[in-house]
Amino acid sequence: MAQALIFDLDGTLVDTVYAHVFAWQRALAEEGMPIEGWRIHRRIGMSGGLFTRGVAREVGRELSADEIERIQLRHGTIFRELLPERRPLPGARKLLEHLRARDIVHGIATSGRRPEIDLSLDALGVGDDTVVIDRGGVARAKPEPDLFLACQAALGVEPEDCYVAGDAVWDLLAARRAGMLSVGLRSGGYGSDELLDAGAFRVYDDAAELLESLDELGFDA
Amino acid sequence: MAQALIFDLDGTLVDTVYAHVFAWQRALAEEGMPIEGWRIHRRIGMSGGLFTRGVAREVGRELSADEIERIQLRHGTIFRELLPERRPLPGARKLLEHLRARDIVHGIATSGRRPEIDLSLDALGVGDDTVVIDRGGVARAKPEPDLFLACQAALGVEPEDCYVAGDAVWDLLAARRAGMLSVGLRSGGYGSDELLDAGAFRVYDDAAELLESLDELGFDA
Repeated sequence: MAQALIFDLDGTLVDTVYAHVFAWQRALAEEGMPIEGWRIHRRIGMSGGLFTRGVAREVGRELSADEIERIQLRHGTIFRELLPERRPLPGARKLLEHLRARDIVHGIATSGRRPEIDLSLDALGVGDDTVVIDRGGVARAKPEPDLFLACQAALGVEPEDCYVAGDAVWDLLAARRAGMLSVGLRSGGYGSDELLDAGAFRVYDDAAELLESLDELGFDA
Repeated sequence: MAQALIFDLDGTLVDTVYAHVFAWQRALAEEGMPIEGWRIHRRIGMSGGLFTRGVAREVGRELSADEIERIQLRHGTIFRELLPERRPLPGARKLLEHLRARDIVHGIATSGRRPEIDLSLDALGVGDDTVVIDRGGVARAKPEPDLFLACQAALGVEPEDCYVAGDAVWDLLAARRAGMLSVGLRSGGYGSDELLDAGAFRVYDDAAELLESLDELGFDA
């Protein structure tokens, strides 16, 4: 009955949220859909379908499949231009090393897709021995629980023994839907209260503070 | 004893915060000072001196005057590349038009400087008849009260009759230091509770919601 940790990736382990926000903002503006930065920010990490529905509501009409594909491709291009490298958030590499050294069961579950996430995993030093569930491995993205449940199943633990660590309310909502506890990290730009209101048991600044606080979560580490 | 409104500019009337965050992040990273996006975001709108002190603490050493100047210039260049146009936030133009039409005393007080802010003022349709206090007009930027006090003096009203509308906790702190009430707008990416905790009397999504809510603030409009 050992506890396990399941991590979100963008904004939780790598510092990519603000580049994603700005890349979406530019890609949408180029298609004549100017949407405010803060509204995009608060939708990062939710499923593409929900994101698109939110965009459609903002611009007041449905988007065609062609438009959606064009915007997604353009977002990817701009994102890679803006951020050719991926920077681990403070403490992220050290936290993962610590978990490996102490044999604490852990995995990563992200709404991103391979091969886009490979640069982030490389920057974190995550190899093939770490369980990574990406968007391609499940039917539904966050805030549906599928990503976290697939990760938990692959780790061979029970949902009630899992803590999800995430920076977005969509991580925390998906954790609740999966029957898991969660901790919120401020490193994606949400405020503490937004994360606590969404169900986080604790909120830390970033992975570095989470590493220092593992005992607060009941990890004997 | 009519009430007056004093507006912050970036993140309150124009959608520039996320471009500023990303431009600072890149300018700092180019100088070998990688700083997380969310920490930059939470410092937007404070004085350059305080911002620089925060950066120095993050990187663990003092910055030279040369470095500071280089980073500031580079930030400006990247910002203009990222955002050649300035987009008013929803309701911003309409709110200012409404205030003009109803003869409600109002002004703008920004930590930005001319000529950088001219594009934003143009996009908002703000002409020479509107009181605009910029960083060059006062000794100290936010969260010191100087900008708001200079605006209030230029408007010919008393501090206790002024509402400050801003998106950052630095606006709200400066308003308290100036003896003014304030409202927080979520359009700069802060959460409601962060704004309320910093002293906002009310929090609205953006200028559009503020316009619809002027009676809640006691404006007969």
